[in-house]
Amino acid sequence: MHAKILHGATDFGSPHFCADLLWRTQFRVPDPVTLAEIDGKRYLLASSLEVERAHKQARVDEVVHLESYAHAAKERGESALVAFLKSKDIDTVEVSGGIPFHVGEDLSNHFSVSVCREVFYPERICKQPHEIAEIASAQAAVDRALERACTVLNEARISGEYITHPSYGEGVLTSEAVRDIIEHSLYQDGFLASDTIVACGIQAADPHMRGSGPLLAYQPIVLDIFPRSRTSLYFTDCTRTVFKGEPSQEMQALYEVVYEAQAGAIEKIRAGVDGFEIYEWVKNSFEEKGYPTNLSSRPVYGFIHGLGHGVGLEIHEEPRLGSCHAELREDMVVTVEPGLYYPRPLGSIPAGGVRIEDTIVAQKDYAFVLSRFPKRLEDVIL
Amino acid sequence: MHAKILHGATDFGSPHFCADLLWRTQFRVPDPVTLAEIDGKRYLLASSLEVERAHKQARVDEVVHLESYAHAAKERGESALVAFLKSKDIDTVEVSGGIPFHVGEDLSNHFSVSVCREVFYPERICKQPHEIAEIASAQAAVDRALERACTVLNEARISGEYITHPSYGEGVLTSEAVRDIIEHSLYQDGFLASDTIVACGIQAADPHMRGSGPLLAYQPIVLDIFPRSRTSLYFTDCTRTVFKGEPSQEMQALYEVVYEAQAGAIEKIRAGVDGFEIYEWVKNSFEEKGYPTNLSSRPVYGFIHGLGHGVGLEIHEEPRLGSCHAELREDMVVTVEPGLYYPRPLGSIPAGGVRIEDTIVAQKDYAFVLSRFPKRLEDVIL
Repeated sequence: MHAKILHGATDFGSPHFCADLLWRTQFRVPDPVTLAEIDGKRYLLASSLEVERAHKQARVDEVVHLESYAHAAKERGESALVAFLKSKDIDTVEVSGGIPFHVGEDLSNHFSVSVCREVFYPERICKQPHEIAEIASAQAAVDRALERACTVLNEARISGEYITHPSYGEGVLTSEAVRDIIEHSLYQDGFLASDTIVACGIQAADPHMRGSGPLLAYQPIVLDIFPRSRTSLYFTDCTRTVFKGEPSQEMQALYEVVYEAQAGAIEKIRAGVDGFEIYEWVKNSFEEKGYPTNLSSRPVYGFIHGLGHGVGLEIHEEPRLGSCHAELREDMVVTVEPGLYYPRPLGSIPAGGVRIEDTIVAQKDYAFVLSRFPKRLEDVIL
Repeated sequence: MHAKILHGATDFGSPHFCADLLWRTQFRVPDPVTLAEIDGKRYLLASSLEVERAHKQARVDEVVHLESYAHAAKERGESALVAFLKSKDIDTVEVSGGIPFHVGEDLSNHFSVSVCREVFYPERICKQPHEIAEIASAQAAVDRALERACTVLNEARISGEYITHPSYGEGVLTSEAVRDIIEHSLYQDGFLASDTIVACGIQAADPHMRGSGPLLAYQPIVLDIFPRSRTSLYFTDCTRTVFKGEPSQEMQALYEVVYEAQAGAIEKIRAGVDGFEIYEWVKNSFEEKGYPTNLSSRPVYGFIHGLGHGVGLEIHEEPRLGSCHAELREDMVVTVEPGLYYPRPLGSIPAGGVRIEDTIVAQKDYAFVLSRFPKRLEDVIL
């Protein structure tokens, strides 16, 4: 007999979070539990602490109380999970690649174990209508948060190289203040955001730099926002690069190149297209327009990350739009987020970074963009 | 040559969160990176996306750009991690038990791999002063949140079996409303809380039931709050059981038994004591006072979980105060959280649940209780 095994927790922010398990069972649990799929039946193995709640809440065929295998297991010096699987005449086991090594090793000592190299539940990649609705609702909250941040930037004034606003800090607008505006707006709407990126100027040349200190006029301000619903646990992911005051011609050119790459990539997305080809098209379009990438230099520069990733119960999930082939299918939800990063000026390219990111739903003939927030150059100069 | 390997992400709420990695490197990163400790040196292996930021922020001896091993790795059909380790003449590898199975398996194909069965960094269990300060500051925020929730319960009135307050919902106070009060207070103080438990009456008989719907007068209301600092990522964990209106004598007796068990357990805690012995003492004191535990029945009832767990960068970490021996040492931070749960009345024991939990710092001669929030029976009848 064969078993497919998942092991993890499914509560918000648990270090052992397993999205597959939450998706499959709908059971929220802060500590790891085990799901075994055997002969078309789903068994959830739970401790005394969780067994009654599992009976009430888990969408499985049977809840197994680990305690009932503890005695047999102890006698034979094996785990309750192994004892349960033996009682089901299991000989082969398939585990997800993310299962903790100690669990996989325990299973390997008793069964023939294979690791799932593909997606554990392929059905999870294409989103159901209610899942798309959850992600869209998160995106609407991000649009509202962006609106609030941009309103403050609009009201602000330029004083030398700084951006000033009488209502914030000592009058000088900072990454921290704008992050607070964004995250507080999201919280009020029912979403948790943390590590929101508000990175300006040279800080924007590091794609994942959170950003700190005074924001600078005429410089790119990267706003990368990826909140999670406090109720459904679905994410969205969105980036805008904005400016307070008209940037240099060279910076405007950098923005336009990224903007055109993003628009072109979104234009190409539809069911049946290979994500790798769109990634390659973006990469080549940057090169052709004179914006090179170098991953062997120190520091690295150019288009230094993938084009996008799936979004759902995980902020980064399958499919990846990068260096591997991945056919897009209807109702996949993915980001499209080209970016260019130059820690130092390169010829006429100014130092700094620009990224534009939308979460989209792949449809048969087009990509449906969830955000309504504008992104043309004239829209983002505040 | 020998290597110790960790693999994971260290940003808030990442599904791949590895507390050991954050503790050791102080580097916040949303996607998994690898830390290799070789001959007293720490190497952090990072992608092009993260390598520059790692140079600036990671507390390691050397940042290794995975890209620089990609070519050699591809030629030999192995991963960049394996190529790096071979370049360092590694033959034996120790991994943490929580490392993803696919990473451990990849290593097993090239090196002799052992799984660390103990704590990966024993130094992490005993907290440094700045870590205790972070946890204490989280607890102070929980005390403020409890104060706010209890103020509302104090202001509320009893109407039949319900609790009414003109400022909330349609006048009837619910689990959801009280959860909002608590989580909003924490958010304003810089902490993120989710899945805060506000479970009343029969819902309180399930230790991890979040709770929903109208709160009931005279019934136990379990408030279990475990926020995480948005900046430091440290947790605290605290539970109070409160009542609106004086509960039945039987319910008061149930509360007193849990209260005395918690007070007695805290009294016994100090460096050098075995957590298992305190757990056993609590379990026996419940039995002796006529509050039995049964883990073989359906439903289970009684004292159905451990006595406590370590708290730090993880909400549940080592040491566990439960069914295994674990010597407490100075500056360990652990919860002490006895609870009794009866889904159905049992003789004179009423249906419901009571839990009282404090996060404490074990000291040489005593346990320092972080919460200042009262918990005597007369304090919790509102």
